[in-house]
Amino acid sequence: MSTKMILVTGFEPFGEEKINPSYEAVKLLPGQIGQWKLKKLELPVGFKESAKVLKKAVEVCTPDVLLCLGQAGGRNAITIERIAINIKDSRMADNFGIIPEDEKIIIDGPDGIFSNLPIKKMMKSVTDHNIPCFVSNTAGTYVCNTVLYHALYLCQNKYPGMRAGFVHVPFIYEQLTQTKSNYPGMRLTDIMEALEYMIEAIDDE
Amino acid sequence: MSTKMILVTGFEPFGEEKINPSYEAVKLLPGQIGQWKLKKLELPVGFKESAKVLKKAVEVCTPDVLLCLGQAGGRNAITIERIAINIKDSRMADNFGIIPEDEKIIIDGPDGIFSNLPIKKMMKSVTDHNIPCFVSNTAGTYVCNTVLYHALYLCQNKYPGMRAGFVHVPFIYEQLTQTKSNYPGMRLTDIMEALEYMIEAIDDE
Amino acid sequence: MSTKMILVTGFEPFGEEKINPSYEAVKLLPGQIGQWKLKKLELPVGFKESAKVLKKAVEVCTPDVLLCLGQAGGRNAITIERIAINIKDSRMADNFGIIPEDEKIIIDGPDGIFSNLPIKKMMKSVTDHNIPCFVSNTAGTYVCNTVLYHALYLCQNKYPGMRAGFVHVPFIYEQLTQTKSNYPGMRLTDIMEALEYMIEAIDDE
Amino acid sequence: MSTKMILVTGFEPFGEEKINPSYEAVKLLPGQIGQWKLKKLELPVGFKESAKVLKKAVEVCTPDVLLCLGQAGGRNAITIERIAINIKDSRMADNFGIIPEDEKIIIDGPDGIFSNLPIKKMMKSVTDHNIPCFVSNTAGTYVCNTVLYHALYLCQNKYPGMRAGFVHVPFIYEQLTQTKSNYPGMRLTDIMEALEYMIEAIDDE
Repeated sequence: MSTKMILVTGFEPFGEEKINPSYEAVKLLPGQIGQWKLKKLELPVGFKESAKVLKKAVEVCTPDVLLCLGQAGGRNAITIERIAINIKDSRMADNFGIIPEDEKIIIDGPDGIFSNLPIKKMMKSVTDHNIPCFVSNTAGTYVCNTVLYHALYLCQNKYPGMRAGFVHVPFIYEQLTQTKSNYPGMRLTDIMEALEYMIEAIDDE
Repeated sequence: MSTKMILVTGFEPFGEEKINPSYEAVKLLPGQIGQWKLKKLELPVGFKESAKVLKKAVEVCTPDVLLCLGQAGGRNAITIERIAINIKDSRMADNFGIIPEDEKIIIDGPDGIFSNLPIKKMMKSVTDHNIPCFVSNTAGTYVCNTVLYHALYLCQNKYPGMRAGFVHVPFIYEQLTQTKSNYPGMRLTDIMEALEYMIEAIDDE
Repeated sequence: MSTKMILVTGFEPFGEEKINPSYEAVKLLPGQIGQWKLKKLELPVGFKESAKVLKKAVEVCTPDVLLCLGQAGGRNAITIERIAINIKDSRMADNFGIIPEDEKIIIDGPDGIFSNLPIKKMMKSVTDHNIPCFVSNTAGTYVCNTVLYHALYLCQNKYPGMRAGFVHVPFIYEQLTQTKSNYPGMRLTDIMEALEYMIEAIDDE
Repeated sequence: MSTKMILVTGFEPFGEEKINPSYEAVKLLPGQIGQWKLKKLELPVGFKESAKVLKKAVEVCTPDVLLCLGQAGGRNAITIERIAINIKDSRMADNFGIIPEDEKIIIDGPDGIFSNLPIKKMMKSVTDHNIPCFVSNTAGTYVCNTVLYHALYLCQNKYPGMRAGFVHVPFIYEQLTQTKSNYPGMRLTDIMEALEYMIEAIDDE
């Protein structure tokens, strides 16, 4: 078993939040999980900026797998996204003040691109360890979806051996106990643990 | 302004339900809305059977627009779907006992196909009349999504002038007051009225 | 059958809202429902002020029944309250800037007082007409609960023949289509109709 | 600081569930928390039987504090109940087949009785440790509320120095990953930890 590289990204905080659980979880991950050597990267919450930073990182470290994380406040479990769709549509500005309305991410790109990671196997690896996790059929139309779309488009068009996927994480306890008591959430260490089980389950294709 | 034809479909009841609000609403619609002459069709809740019935009806009446409706129990408003994705995945059997797991709908079809109806304009026409309505980014992976995928695939590959879309309707009051008091719902006549505003908003392309 | 009087109250708008569906519904009610002659009253959203206005109105018109209404944004149906509890506790100021923390409403009052209206019969009268309605076991600890507590305390201590109750109504469609698309709601005329069925069901004791 | 005794109860499983997180959490608690020596007791899910077992245990061990726990599936955090109300009302049978409809728990008991534990202080002790917890204003009308009502009635009428309260716990991860993926939940050890912080916060009155 040879060592492979996985690039794991999370986002900087956005909106009124002071932390983003997606990158908080990434920071806690060890440097190696099973056969996977981890590279970690924090992405800006900007439709354009996130893509720029992501592309450069992929170019520099040419990972075997690209796993991006984002916050999905209000979801009650960790969710693995099935698909990215070719649309940017938001009522909330990104961190750079941009509010796109029904714009394509890549003008001549396909309408949707499925993740080419083994998402059900990854999910099962998490739920087998009794951490709530399910597959989601929409990553929304905000920056998270944009990042996944770019990642999958790169797999299809520039790095044919690369695989990519996206994981949405719920609010963490610190966020709930301060301002969001009506929302479900998870403990940060549970999210981190789930990510480890997930990454372990990515086979060496 | 010439008359155009719109084929409007709803589903038969499924699971434990005795009615399906999608076809109940279709039945209440008038025969003509603005420039649109309506044809109505009830679809079976079967992954294969729904497609078969739909294709035959399209072949026979060659509509300008194909608008399919389904029930989305638990949603609190009428929702217009943005995209269909090339997957059948369910834990619940269809009315023919089939439980597909991560199967493609059309082997060599694209991962996703956007609705080519003016979904935001249709939504606005409904909310302008103070009926709750929004755009949804997932039609799920059950029979509803399968029907929309087939409809959009037909537009792309066989009937280039045709447009298609899907509307999910919530539970109706009759369902709530009998067994589902914890769920949100709408009055059937409000759903019917919303459909009229929506269809009015489809422009004559 | 002699005529009896019912005093029906609703609240003025509060927080960021421009209307309060509770008083909007009251305004739409007819002057007589079955044996009940209606008096209508709008209450201020103030812990003290609401009680003052309510007491004066009861003193002036000595109703047989006192039915108070308030908004419960987020609930998906009309709810009839079972009990008021002797506590004021809020993180949100009332319209007079008051934010009480765990204060008694009436120093030596009982911890809780049940509504002495036939709440299940009233509920059934609404659901029999296919409008979603259920009994709630908490009116919260904000102004709504305070008003109900005062009303029931008056029944127990000053007006022995009087009966009182409280109905929480959800957001109405106008509120949802403007700013609250994630919430469930009802059409104002459905709420009004439900109130009529409810009031009809209050027997002549 | 002298040692005081706290009797902590949880319920046996009910309905389709194979475990009840309330007693699972009780089992994990240590024998002593701060000044409090713990006695543990599993209660049957029966309107009458729970009261009988509870009363006998209180008679035998005369605790200083009685803290009862139950499952509130669907809540997203640990909740501390403020009040018990004098009503049994259910559509679901208890484990002995009883389905009470609007019956009083104690014929001449008061409508409601507030918990006499320092519920806000207990809540703060939990949230200060970043575990989601809030005060609830209804324990429902099923067996949980009945047990709390009996406990508080005993404090008022038979054991004047005793204090009592009720804590509702959400589903635990094991329940979610097997059958309830749409619900929020918590890790059992987080619930246990929260109970420790809560019990620590009960002052020596």
